Amino acid sequence: MPRPFPIALIGQKFMGRAHSNAWSQVARFFDVSLTPLLHTVCARERGELEAFAERWRWLNVTTDWRDIAGYDDVELVDIGTPNYVHAEQSIAMLEARKHVACEKPLAGTLEDARAMAQAAKKAAKRGVKTFVWFNYRRCPAVALAHKLVREGRLGAIRHVRAHYLQDWGGPSTPLSWRFQRKLAGSGAHGDLNAHIVDMARFLVGEEVVEVHGAIARTFIAERPLPGSPRKKGKSDVDDCVLFLASFAGGGTASFEASRLAPGHQNDNFIELNGEKGSLRFSFENMNVLELCEVSDPRTDGWKRIMCTSAGRHPYAAAWWPDAHVLGYEHGFVNMAADILRVLGGEQPEAPLPDFEDAYRTQRVLEAALLSAKERCAVKLSQVK
Amino acid sequence: MPRPFPIALIGQKFMGRAHSNAWSQVARFFDVSLTPLLHTVCARERGELEAFAERWRWLNVTTDWRDIAGYDDVELVDIGTPNYVHAEQSIAMLEARKHVACEKPLAGTLEDARAMAQAAKKAAKRGVKTFVWFNYRRCPAVALAHKLVREGRLGAIRHVRAHYLQDWGGPSTPLSWRFQRKLAGSGAHGDLNAHIVDMARFLVGEEVVEVHGAIARTFIAERPLPGSPRKKGKSDVDDCVLFLASFAGGGTASFEASRLAPGHQNDNFIELNGEKGSLRFSFENMNVLELCEVSDPRTDGWKRIMCTSAGRHPYAAAWWPDAHVLGYEHGFVNMAADILRVLGGEQPEAPLPDFEDAYRTQRVLEAALLSAKERCAVKLSQVK
Amino acid sequence: MPRPFPIALIGQKFMGRAHSNAWSQVARFFDVSLTPLLHTVCARERGELEAFAERWRWLNVTTDWRDIAGYDDVELVDIGTPNYVHAEQSIAMLEARKHVACEKPLAGTLEDARAMAQAAKKAAKRGVKTFVWFNYRRCPAVALAHKLVREGRLGAIRHVRAHYLQDWGGPSTPLSWRFQRKLAGSGAHGDLNAHIVDMARFLVGEEVVEVHGAIARTFIAERPLPGSPRKKGKSDVDDCVLFLASFAGGGTASFEASRLAPGHQNDNFIELNGEKGSLRFSFENMNVLELCEVSDPRTDGWKRIMCTSAGRHPYAAAWWPDAHVLGYEHGFVNMAADILRVLGGEQPEAPLPDFEDAYRTQRVLEAALLSAKERCAVKLSQVK
Amino acid sequence: MPRPFPIALIGQKFMGRAHSNAWSQVARFFDVSLTPLLHTVCARERGELEAFAERWRWLNVTTDWRDIAGYDDVELVDIGTPNYVHAEQSIAMLEARKHVACEKPLAGTLEDARAMAQAAKKAAKRGVKTFVWFNYRRCPAVALAHKLVREGRLGAIRHVRAHYLQDWGGPSTPLSWRFQRKLAGSGAHGDLNAHIVDMARFLVGEEVVEVHGAIARTFIAERPLPGSPRKKGKSDVDDCVLFLASFAGGGTASFEASRLAPGHQNDNFIELNGEKGSLRFSFENMNVLELCEVSDPRTDGWKRIMCTSAGRHPYAAAWWPDAHVLGYEHGFVNMAADILRVLGGEQPEAPLPDFEDAYRTQRVLEAALLSAKERCAVKLSQVK
Repeated sequence: MPRPFPIALIGQKFMGRAHSNAWSQVARFFDVSLTPLLHTVCARERGELEAFAERWRWLNVTTDWRDIAGYDDVELVDIGTPNYVHAEQSIAMLEARKHVACEKPLAGTLEDARAMAQAAKKAAKRGVKTFVWFNYRRCPAVALAHKLVREGRLGAIRHVRAHYLQDWGGPSTPLSWRFQRKLAGSGAHGDLNAHIVDMARFLVGEEVVEVHGAIARTFIAERPLPGSPRKKGKSDVDDCVLFLASFAGGGTASFEASRLAPGHQNDNFIELNGEKGSLRFSFENMNVLELCEVSDPRTDGWKRIMCTSAGRHPYAAAWWPDAHVLGYEHGFVNMAADILRVLGGEQPEAPLPDFEDAYRTQRVLEAALLSAKERCAVKLSQVK
Repeated sequence: MPRPFPIALIGQKFMGRAHSNAWSQVARFFDVSLTPLLHTVCARERGELEAFAERWRWLNVTTDWRDIAGYDDVELVDIGTPNYVHAEQSIAMLEARKHVACEKPLAGTLEDARAMAQAAKKAAKRGVKTFVWFNYRRCPAVALAHKLVREGRLGAIRHVRAHYLQDWGGPSTPLSWRFQRKLAGSGAHGDLNAHIVDMARFLVGEEVVEVHGAIARTFIAERPLPGSPRKKGKSDVDDCVLFLASFAGGGTASFEASRLAPGHQNDNFIELNGEKGSLRFSFENMNVLELCEVSDPRTDGWKRIMCTSAGRHPYAAAWWPDAHVLGYEHGFVNMAADILRVLGGEQPEAPLPDFEDAYRTQRVLEAALLSAKERCAVKLSQVK
Repeated sequence: MPRPFPIALIGQKFMGRAHSNAWSQVARFFDVSLTPLLHTVCARERGELEAFAERWRWLNVTTDWRDIAGYDDVELVDIGTPNYVHAEQSIAMLEARKHVACEKPLAGTLEDARAMAQAAKKAAKRGVKTFVWFNYRRCPAVALAHKLVREGRLGAIRHVRAHYLQDWGGPSTPLSWRFQRKLAGSGAHGDLNAHIVDMARFLVGEEVVEVHGAIARTFIAERPLPGSPRKKGKSDVDDCVLFLASFAGGGTASFEASRLAPGHQNDNFIELNGEKGSLRFSFENMNVLELCEVSDPRTDGWKRIMCTSAGRHPYAAAWWPDAHVLGYEHGFVNMAADILRVLGGEQPEAPLPDFEDAYRTQRVLEAALLSAKERCAVKLSQVK
Repeated sequence: MPRPFPIALIGQKFMGRAHSNAWSQVARFFDVSLTPLLHTVCARERGELEAFAERWRWLNVTTDWRDIAGYDDVELVDIGTPNYVHAEQSIAMLEARKHVACEKPLAGTLEDARAMAQAAKKAAKRGVKTFVWFNYRRCPAVALAHKLVREGRLGAIRHVRAHYLQDWGGPSTPLSWRFQRKLAGSGAHGDLNAHIVDMARFLVGEEVVEVHGAIARTFIAERPLPGSPRKKGKSDVDDCVLFLASFAGGGTASFEASRLAPGHQNDNFIELNGEKGSLRFSFENMNVLELCEVSDPRTDGWKRIMCTSAGRHPYAAAWWPDAHVLGYEHGFVNMAADILRVLGGEQPEAPLPDFEDAYRTQRVLEAALLSAKERCAVKLSQVK
């Protein structure tokens, strides 16, 4: 018999909705031993918050996130706020012995990320767990890719080619928090490169040891203010960051994030080339994994695998019949299921990133910024 | 302020889940004036039923669908049962002045379908409405296609090429109700051709006037009994049906449904060729519409439109940012929103099929079976 | 040491160029025991003809094709003229004991085709051979498909889906011989369906036994006269023909040819679904064969095979390194190589169609026209 | 009336064949004012050379390339030899007042390349012209891309993403000259990055000003000796080189060449993202250009343009009807036509690279190697 599991959520914007949906849907599709109980949702604007809580059936609301630390029955705090408050909120909740699931990137700065990893380490000794919402690991196609690499089907990985390209960052896009360094830490880099660095580390199963060069560019220096489109404010985050890196095993990697790539709306793409084969994935066609193995020379080629078959593909049994495809939100529901599995003592379908893991991703991002600034290669051992 | 709107559902299998999900999710994503109240769910096996009701938070259960006619507060009855009971259940509910939303195909036989259309006509005089769950009309890409054709962007339609191909019907698949003529009426034909005939009529906006020839084939005559795989039973429905047809405006059409097409898992595909351009859609890549217009000779070609932008594409504003793609279940949620809009006196995003409309689709299916049997062309005017 | 092999060609238009190129190039890329000697080219307009002969280095010209019968050293006559003269020219050349390679379709009418097949049968007794330029059989991807089906990799074939779609037949296209029934016999049907019926028979390896229904349509009844665009003449061939058929082994087939399909310029497409897998090919991406085999459930899917590797793929060794792709004209060069191999006593890479084989294709085309006209199914045994 | 134009060719391997074919075919498909006369072919192995000359109908052979300087009637010398002899041969021919068309990369070392550019500059004063066989510029799709960018359809270019990936460089591939630094200069870098750097400069129309970081890797250090597969020799060229760069206008660029990328056989790929749109090309589907323009928000998307229509697309009028696709060798024939046009005083379809232009490409390649070695960014102004 599933046990009700009280959760609090901080944030009610894009991620607030995605997480609320995940906690609402997970027990309808997955057989989980813990059933989410939507205890409290927190945000600053009370009016919107009450409508949000009503819509998603959160039982309680507060406009002060610190209240949550005092709710004894809340077991997990889910953080869906802008990057600059992740550290303060997470650390407070860990100290209150709550499990924490934090949105990515782990933080806006490496200092924050380091503090969070340290707090998580301390909390772990008391059985408190941390999670970071790198939701794309939970796409069935990505989880299948992870299994295939682990089984050695590609052999040693020689090359990784990853990009995360979007097109919404043109000069008419208003100056939200995402374009202000003091709130977001960085632009495309933390928002998008964070995902593909996580994905690459996850799939290759090795750490990045060096960044060989990087470019960070701000093409659009001013943007209209939200609500007063005739006034402009300073947009001081990167619009794109590209960098080259290598893995511990010697494989090369290229990463590129941009918000100025017409034709790519949400193109989170990764390709791995190994000794014995290659695979690739793009989120824009999220149900598909492409695989090319060196086997029968006459009929080798890229295979388009629809990763939607119950009993064959990760997460598929919870959902619909073959090729009744999944969408964006399912990655979050799948992740919610895995979080509940882990907290219930079971195995997740694919490994879940914690604060330590996300901190390693953050160090790679930092090394890239350093490399761009210093115009030279940076070894990860130099990044503290 | 949204008004609670009590709904009863008959059926708890694949469609029972899809519909329960639609009624649960619709008010979270759409601003609807009627909010579904999940009043009663009905099915024959009580044990499963109670677990199902618990999981989806239906307030009440019954194992006798006739009870529902007596629940005065229920306003809409949603029918997700096998084809052979659609007529009996629908007609009873219409007579009890309930709105009815019935799964497709409308019925297992033309006689049933005709009776349903007549009952709907009578009920309509009392303000009672009918709906048929041709869910694929609600894919954003299909709804966009509908708009573009209406706006004349393709000109007169010369050719329609539609197929719905699956691969799960091999000889090891057990003998469910879907393979028994007395329960399902037909095989791939009613299950799959129903969808693409509806889609073709919807997009072209004309009626089929003649079936020019047809093939119906049963390749697998015996299947293992569910639960006793060593025993076999007679599989007497078609595994595939192909037919050629023409529309009132002179356009040609080909339709093919099969459950024996390796490589196609849920390939609901349609292409239209018009005087001024073409478009095509496959459900396996459901977020995309392909469009080719004759405009600038140097740069004409098939365009891949990701139909996921709020403010640009049907249904998209309810969901996620650009290219944060949708999945199978979203067609049902979108349709639930449109049903509630219509019942609340608003316009749906795209026209909704009622019993009369679905009866016309059923007549085309009947003409195809007749053509296959008689080995000659059949005018729709010959099908009563 | 290769022996010079004198060839005469009738025709200097599109096919005259394609065949001249084939005979010019074949010995540069293939090691053939017979080297084409471009003896005589024949056409009616002497001025153009001399320029053509100069360009392609034909040694001799004539404006009277009957002269060729008297050139004793000519061993092969290649016929690239409009359909209505194929019979007369071929039969005369066969009677003069020349091998004949005739463009497809074999003829404009079934009567002509039958007479040609009979003449070929008689000539064969004297060692004279016939060939028909179904050039698409010589695409490496198609030849590979043929091998894979022969090896049983798809199992029994259940479905064939073939279309040949083009877009150049709109109302502004002038009235060339291709739009006049008395010269062309038919429109899209003989021009395009001929190719895909040949391809289907070639790949499946069975004969068509029944046509189950057909549609033939002329959408554009008048076209501008070539040279006097303000005057119009009657366009009395079909713009499209669709038909359904079945093979001796019970497999179903659909065929569609059209010149009014925007977005398809030369889309000669065929897909086969078998018990154990599927394959498909489109000429617009001619270097690729797609294959889907049922093997490892986790990683099954459509594989994109680039058929360009020497030692692995048919014809590839003659050309360039891997994936240095081939084009349209290479099918003709490959076919020229196969004709020379056969005439030199060797095996071709893939079976070559002769007049008897092409006559069988013509009977299927005739059955389709009969079915469209009579509005009923037609068994091939009814077509004499 | 076309004038015969005597050409000599040095080299009879892969490029010798490709160039011989180009000179043989050009006057058959293009109306050129100069008709190639295949005067002399030169290579070291006389036996092979005579067979080669016979096959391609070269009138004369020599095993000493210096002889060619003395053939007064030869007007153009075509150099298809390994990189390390390009400089010596080219400079000698320029000094003998022959036009020179040299294979790419311009040279194995920057010193050689500089000397060649200087020699070309001097020769130019006497009306002698140079050309470099960057054949991919002559794909119709690439030439169309060039026109579209020039017309401003993409606006300012923000990002270039280019890779040239192949899969034939595994450990079993024998130690040809291509794997020896002293003969080839570099591995994938000079062979493949040379093409995409040329392509990027050509399309963007700006010079690279900085290399921001680079990785060069040799994964396979030993290879079997050709002819004695049990013995191994040292493979001392790069298997892959990746680098990041920026253009004068501020756009970013990534380049990657590898011979160890399973699934990519000849994947010469480039994508440009501009303010107003994007385009991309892969040689594996060489007849297609993909274009995405920001215009009508509802129907924007990647368009697949088949660049094969006479009168619409570069080079297409010379060849076949729409979508009767071209292959690898056609790029060389198209280039031969452009060389003859330029030498005949006409305009080429798209700009032709000369030694100076190729030297600029070579400087970018050098900067990348320097960056990899020094582990820092390198400004092009630092590369002499």
